Amino acid sequence: MSVAYPPLSTVEADPYESRVGAEWSAQPRQDPVVWGSAEGPLAEPQLTQYAEQGYFAATELLSLNEAAELLAEANALAAAADVTAADVIAEPNSKVVRSLFRLHRTNDRIRQLVKDPRLADVARQMLGSEVYVHQCRVNFKPAFQGKEFFWHSDFETWHVEDGMTRMRAVSLSINLTENNEFNGPLMVVRGSHEYYIQCAGQTPANHFEQSLRKQEYGVPSREALLFLVEQGEIVAPKGGPGSALFFECNTMHGSVGNLSPYPRTNLFIVYNSVDNGLVAPFGGLPPRPEFLAERELIPVTVL
Amino acid sequence: MSVAYPPLSTVEADPYESRVGAEWSAQPRQDPVVWGSAEGPLAEPQLTQYAEQGYFAATELLSLNEAAELLAEANALAAAADVTAADVIAEPNSKVVRSLFRLHRTNDRIRQLVKDPRLADVARQMLGSEVYVHQCRVNFKPAFQGKEFFWHSDFETWHVEDGMTRMRAVSLSINLTENNEFNGPLMVVRGSHEYYIQCAGQTPANHFEQSLRKQEYGVPSREALLFLVEQGEIVAPKGGPGSALFFECNTMHGSVGNLSPYPRTNLFIVYNSVDNGLVAPFGGLPPRPEFLAERELIPVTVL
Repeated sequence: MSVAYPPLSTVEADPYESRVGAEWSAQPRQDPVVWGSAEGPLAEPQLTQYAEQGYFAATELLSLNEAAELLAEANALAAAADVTAADVIAEPNSKVVRSLFRLHRTNDRIRQLVKDPRLADVARQMLGSEVYVHQCRVNFKPAFQGKEFFWHSDFETWHVEDGMTRMRAVSLSINLTENNEFNGPLMVVRGSHEYYIQCAGQTPANHFEQSLRKQEYGVPSREALLFLVEQGEIVAPKGGPGSALFFECNTMHGSVGNLSPYPRTNLFIVYNSVDNGLVAPFGGLPPRPEFLAERELIPVTVL
Repeated sequence: MSVAYPPLSTVEADPYESRVGAEWSAQPRQDPVVWGSAEGPLAEPQLTQYAEQGYFAATELLSLNEAAELLAEANALAAAADVTAADVIAEPNSKVVRSLFRLHRTNDRIRQLVKDPRLADVARQMLGSEVYVHQCRVNFKPAFQGKEFFWHSDFETWHVEDGMTRMRAVSLSINLTENNEFNGPLMVVRGSHEYYIQCAGQTPANHFEQSLRKQEYGVPSREALLFLVEQGEIVAPKGGPGSALFFECNTMHGSVGNLSPYPRTNLFIVYNSVDNGLVAPFGGLPPRPEFLAERELIPVTVL
């Protein structure tokens, strides 16, 4: 499942160009999904499943106790958060906190957690190298009012807006509350990581200030989504507190709103390979702020 | 399961007052759920289930063929619809048709269908009398863009805004497309029909023109919803084309948006007892238009 890849310098043009024209396209992925053949916590069938599906559901990655402690910490941070701060994102038209960023740098408990071998060793095994944290946030989808998030590939944004060269990152979403059928669980399109969807349109400057609240650019076309769903299918892995989902950086995902009385609170950690550190954004605009895309490459071992 | 009820004249005040103050309240329902003990298509355990849960899932109520024909008809009507007409409701900020109304009066196929004993006899059995159609519509929840609809009791609106006196009506939602986990299926709160939720706030005149697109009044409080969910639970019955859900007029229900590539199209028929015809709206404002609330009481037998 490990595939040799051409060094970027031999590729004539950016293989992951996006937002450069009026048309969408679907290109085969240019990178392996599992890099190398490192030892790690996952058994071969689990790794194969991840490589084929673009995600891996890790039930009970953390204990219920650990999840409860993290939830209490996250809620305390949200309650104390300054909703006017750049790295605190509130719901559209309200002051309800939607995301708190960069917790791997600002919070001791979470800094320890991202180094935890139960998490980081899986990332190392998938990415075939030492890893660092590209982004770390808590996502709150509050009861009765959590908003939907339309389908997107994180890699598309990270490539165009942050300068991530290769598909050599993996996201980890850890349930701090139960993620069930009714509170807007993450939906992923199985197998979608195998296609790079070039989005239509161009990115305006400072797009990120709006995109965290409401997406307008880097949005895949409906035709592209239909194409992906026809190749695979939509799945919404669910689970109790402490269960988690690893998903490949190019896996198409989204989530509906939360009309239920059950808050959905997840800790989201993006591991990137230390061999895939950010360069200048491929979209040509200045890079986004570091709370969205860590530019200081600190391996988690020394974090 | 049939319960004697006091004639309205013996009740000192409107038992289903709503939108009269700043507070919400939950009152026990004053009416039976199953009226009388008429013979009908449902077996005793099915009727008991309906009485206890507030809904009854009728799988394969119509054949796949019938559902396909109705879907084709609905899509043709939507394509030809004038989105500026009063009885055509479009999505907020777009011209995508969300609802077509009064099809039991304007469309031959649907006029025949509402009289069909597979449908009407169930309604007669539940309501213990001859029935007429209070409202009939096709609800479109288009792929990728169908909007959420927040929790509500239809009876609350029909009582306050239309003048429906008693809880003696039943809604029937027939799937014309599959209703699955991802296209915003109807969610109901099991057992919620047993409580009347008085909503806070007052109704402005011509509220209906906005409420079909975006709800602001007659919205249950979060505390009320928590109370109901604690008594029962949220369920989202799913099923293929032709499957259907009968749900009691006071059952709390809602649905999330549709981010999937699967359109969700349902035919919605409200049967009311001929002994429960509309009077002046209990909220004191002029009645809503007839496409929303039929005031001409025509038993389905002679429709």
